[in-house]
Amino acid sequence: MIPDIAFDALSTVLEGRVTRSKSDLDVHGRSETWFAPTPPDAVAYPETTQEVSAMMKVCYAHDIPVVAWGAGTSLEGQTLAIHGGLVVDFSRMNRVLQVNDADMDCRVQPGVTREQLNTDLRATGLMFPVDPGANASIGGMAMTRASGTTAVRYGTMRDNVIGLSVVLADGTIIETGSRARKSSAGYDLTALFVGSEGTLGLVTELSLRLYGQPEAISAAVCAFDDLDAAVNAVIATIQYGLPMARIEFLDVVSVQAVNAYSGANFPARPHLFVEFHGSQVSVADQVETFGDIVRDFGGSDFEWASKTEERNALWTMRHNAYYACLALKPGYKAVVTDICVPISKLAQAVEETAADIAASPLDGPILGHVGDGNFHAILLIEDANDADLGEAKRLAGRMAERALAMGGTITGEHGIGMGKKDLMQAEHGAAWTVMGALKSAMDPRNLMNPGKLVP
Amino acid sequence: MIPDIAFDALSTVLEGRVTRSKSDLDVHGRSETWFAPTPPDAVAYPETTQEVSAMMKVCYAHDIPVVAWGAGTSLEGQTLAIHGGLVVDFSRMNRVLQVNDADMDCRVQPGVTREQLNTDLRATGLMFPVDPGANASIGGMAMTRASGTTAVRYGTMRDNVIGLSVVLADGTIIETGSRARKSSAGYDLTALFVGSEGTLGLVTELSLRLYGQPEAISAAVCAFDDLDAAVNAVIATIQYGLPMARIEFLDVVSVQAVNAYSGANFPARPHLFVEFHGSQVSVADQVETFGDIVRDFGGSDFEWASKTEERNALWTMRHNAYYACLALKPGYKAVVTDICVPISKLAQAVEETAADIAASPLDGPILGHVGDGNFHAILLIEDANDADLGEAKRLAGRMAERALAMGGTITGEHGIGMGKKDLMQAEHGAAWTVMGALKSAMDPRNLMNPGKLVP
Ligand SMILES: Cc1cc2nc3c(=O)[nH]c(=O)nc-3n(C[C@H](O)[C@H](O)[C@H](O)COP(=O)(O)OP(=O)(O)OC[C@H]3O[C@@H](n4cnc5c(N)ncnc54)[C@H](O)[C@@H]3O)c2cc1C
Ligand SMILES: Cc1cc2nc3c(=O)[nH]c(=O)nc-3n(C[C@H](O)[C@H](O)[C@H](O)COP(=O)(O)OP(=O)(O)OC[C@H]3O[C@@H](n4cnc5c(N)ncnc54)[C@H](O)[C@@H]3O)c2cc1C
Repeated sequence: MIPDIAFDALSTVLEGRVTRSKSDLDVHGRSETWFAPTPPDAVAYPETTQEVSAMMKVCYAHDIPVVAWGAGTSLEGQTLAIHGGLVVDFSRMNRVLQVNDADMDCRVQPGVTREQLNTDLRATGLMFPVDPGANASIGGMAMTRASGTTAVRYGTMRDNVIGLSVVLADGTIIETGSRARKSSAGYDLTALFVGSEGTLGLVTELSLRLYGQPEAISAAVCAFDDLDAAVNAVIATIQYGLPMARIEFLDVVSVQAVNAYSGANFPARPHLFVEFHGSQVSVADQVETFGDIVRDFGGSDFEWASKTEERNALWTMRHNAYYACLALKPGYKAVVTDICVPISKLAQAVEETAADIAASPLDGPILGHVGDGNFHAILLIEDANDADLGEAKRLAGRMAERALAMGGTITGEHGIGMGKKDLMQAEHGAAWTVMGALKSAMDPRNLMNPGKLVP
Repeated sequence: MIPDIAFDALSTVLEGRVTRSKSDLDVHGRSETWFAPTPPDAVAYPETTQEVSAMMKVCYAHDIPVVAWGAGTSLEGQTLAIHGGLVVDFSRMNRVLQVNDADMDCRVQPGVTREQLNTDLRATGLMFPVDPGANASIGGMAMTRASGTTAVRYGTMRDNVIGLSVVLADGTIIETGSRARKSSAGYDLTALFVGSEGTLGLVTELSLRLYGQPEAISAAVCAFDDLDAAVNAVIATIQYGLPMARIEFLDVVSVQAVNAYSGANFPARPHLFVEFHGSQVSVADQVETFGDIVRDFGGSDFEWASKTEERNALWTMRHNAYYACLALKPGYKAVVTDICVPISKLAQAVEETAADIAASPLDGPILGHVGDGNFHAILLIEDANDADLGEAKRLAGRMAERALAMGGTITGEHGIGMGKKDLMQAEHGAAWTVMGALKSAMDPRNLMNPGKLVP
């Protein structure tokens, strides 16, 4: 509940850009996955850091929970206002503030989307590589510590956010990090905020590391006889040290889903989708080495996508794989798992997961960023079917246990939100309590995205 | 002060490995730089995580300050027990616990030194690249977020520590991170501890990322007509995107100091010391490109060090440069500055610093890891000469201001300790207060390295 006096105060500091209109509340009450809609009490659209600070002071004074909203593409219910309060939609803070060609960094507002940023950068010869498929906002990506297809080469948001402006619960504005390439000046607050899912403060600016657009890019797909062969080819590639730009696995069901959804006709076998970046010489060299590895594992001849449009079509298909899987069963929703294991355990983890799913009544295509040891099963459940949901959670729980037993993690890139909170104790033990203590220190009134991530 | 009853309790849990012998206290009361000796009240030598936990419980019960000690090579007085209490020397926790070839990671105790680790790894074909010159302990390196000559290619401790065991102030043992290559499972506690200088807890185990030993390595030195030309060659190299493994700058005074100390005979001109890692083909390619860049800036012909022994000799000279500079003025001590700026500002930062030092009565050779935008002036001061110390601090203060004005940091790699605490407010503003709040949350009794880093 937001009392009228608080709503009016918010309206004043935001110059009217706060609303209780039903359509706004509904849009900001939905998530991409299986969580029940939870509309907030109001939605705010700030435009500046100063406004965000003034807004937080009002919320602090009136004890109003605040949930940040980037593009709303997170998969664990991170943006749902489960304790009511204000959703802060950053879509109007979408300016690229500065691009420093010479230092290969930039400063952006959090509502800039990754596609928008790369369109903006095109003429500079630079790019921001982190690519979670969805056209997420940079602020949201930072807050889930997103990664995606290119992390195997360029790292995740952890590696590519170098500084932040953050508004704390009481409205204090702080700056973290610097434009230097490294620093030993105290606690790494940037890293503490990255991945914090809006539970510690609202990000109003980000400095990002950029990369030169590669001189040469080459992409390919290749099919394998079985899951084992495909995954073992990945392990060999990573252990060889080949600097893959992308190396993605799709199991048979995923391939069939992509064929149906995107009008492709890949053979119904497990596939790898790969991409190489570098100089002409080095890409040629990588392609050759990779070809040798694939042949060792009985992979099919490559199908090459060397033209830009072909490549774009390929990665669009990959990015739409989630929707392609959903389309396998119209009206169904998904519980999306996201484990990440040491590369040496990848084959075992994928096989055991596939066997689990085969023995279950649910469908669950498997695909993922296998170069990082990260993969997803998209467990399809009938909407509002408790038995399905229970079964999906059982499978997801087994995957999580498996990942932890192998020295891995319950989430490689999607984060915790509500969906994985009950697995945090198993992954972190007493360290989860420490996370709670840090949260309390930063946000003693528990206003920032309450009910998510921490105990 | 440590009451006898507490000392006896410590002696019990440490099976006698705690001492008040004068020689032990003296050794652990010294620092590498200009700080006055400050012996602690006792020194402990734990051997296991469990012992460290039991020891912390005693310290917690008796309110005894605790300062961790790795190899004692930090440069900002980090290890000095300025509030008395217990120094915890980790030299007996020096085992490499596990090397996972297939995943290219390892688990070590904190007292393992970087040279010891690389000797251990030699046969595996892997290496741990972070190289702060000194034979520091891995625990100490993690806690100062160390980097050094190779960070330009392999990153700093921030990038290469993937998990920790930590004993908190009250003796609780926590685990951070995992062996997965990435994770979005909550706050990045690993990153919070890395760089915390023992103010948040004691590290008892570390998981590290390893790299394949390069197939080919080539090193070289080259001289330039002036500082400008050398630094601009570095900027061009970095902006070109050449994956240098090392690129170090030494000014004329540093070169003369190295000649005198190490019996070399480099021409009395500014130099770059460089190294290339990769496949035979790629190193050859890098060397050629770098050669072109150097020629553009009027650099002299390279002097190559292609044999392992020649390379080792070269880097030993570089690593001893600090002692070589100290030897310029026998009996003097050093205030070591450590700013890091965006690469585009590097030439300006170095030039202005050189001009400042030229106008000062002090000597201050300049050298550094310029590929990161990081360099040091080794400001030589007479021991116990307050005027010299005041002048050194004035120069260091101007360098820090300069770095901050350029978007850089007051310390690229040496950390804060006592020496740079008075610059933290200028770098972080309100974010420094946040660091203090985090410290209080983790260590409410302020027992962990009190007086360092936080307000
Ligand atoms: C089809 C599809 C494919 C996907 N594939 C991947 C993938 O490959 N890799 C991957 O990593 N993810 C993937 N995701 C997940 C998703 O894209 C990410 O979680 C994304 O990083 C979230 O960005 P967003 O802008 O949508 O943030 P939101 O969902 O709006 O918010 C995410 C979290 O950040 C917080 N937040 C947002 N903005 C701010 C701010 N300014 N300040 C403070 N907190 C803020 C929110 O409160 C929330 O907790 C996929 C999602 C979909 C739908
Ligand atoms: C000649 C010379 C050259 C140098 N060159 C570089 C360089 O190029 N790059 C660079 O980064 N540094 C450099 N340094 C600085 C130094 O080597 C680093 O600061 C080093 O990382 C500290 O490691 P140590 O083992 O000596 O730690 P110590 O000095 O013993 O401790 C450092 C800090 O970590 C804490 N600590 C140590 N162990 C633990 C533990 N187990 N748990 C919790 N806290 C702990 C200590 O309390 C202290 O605060 C140089 C130093 C010298 C003398």
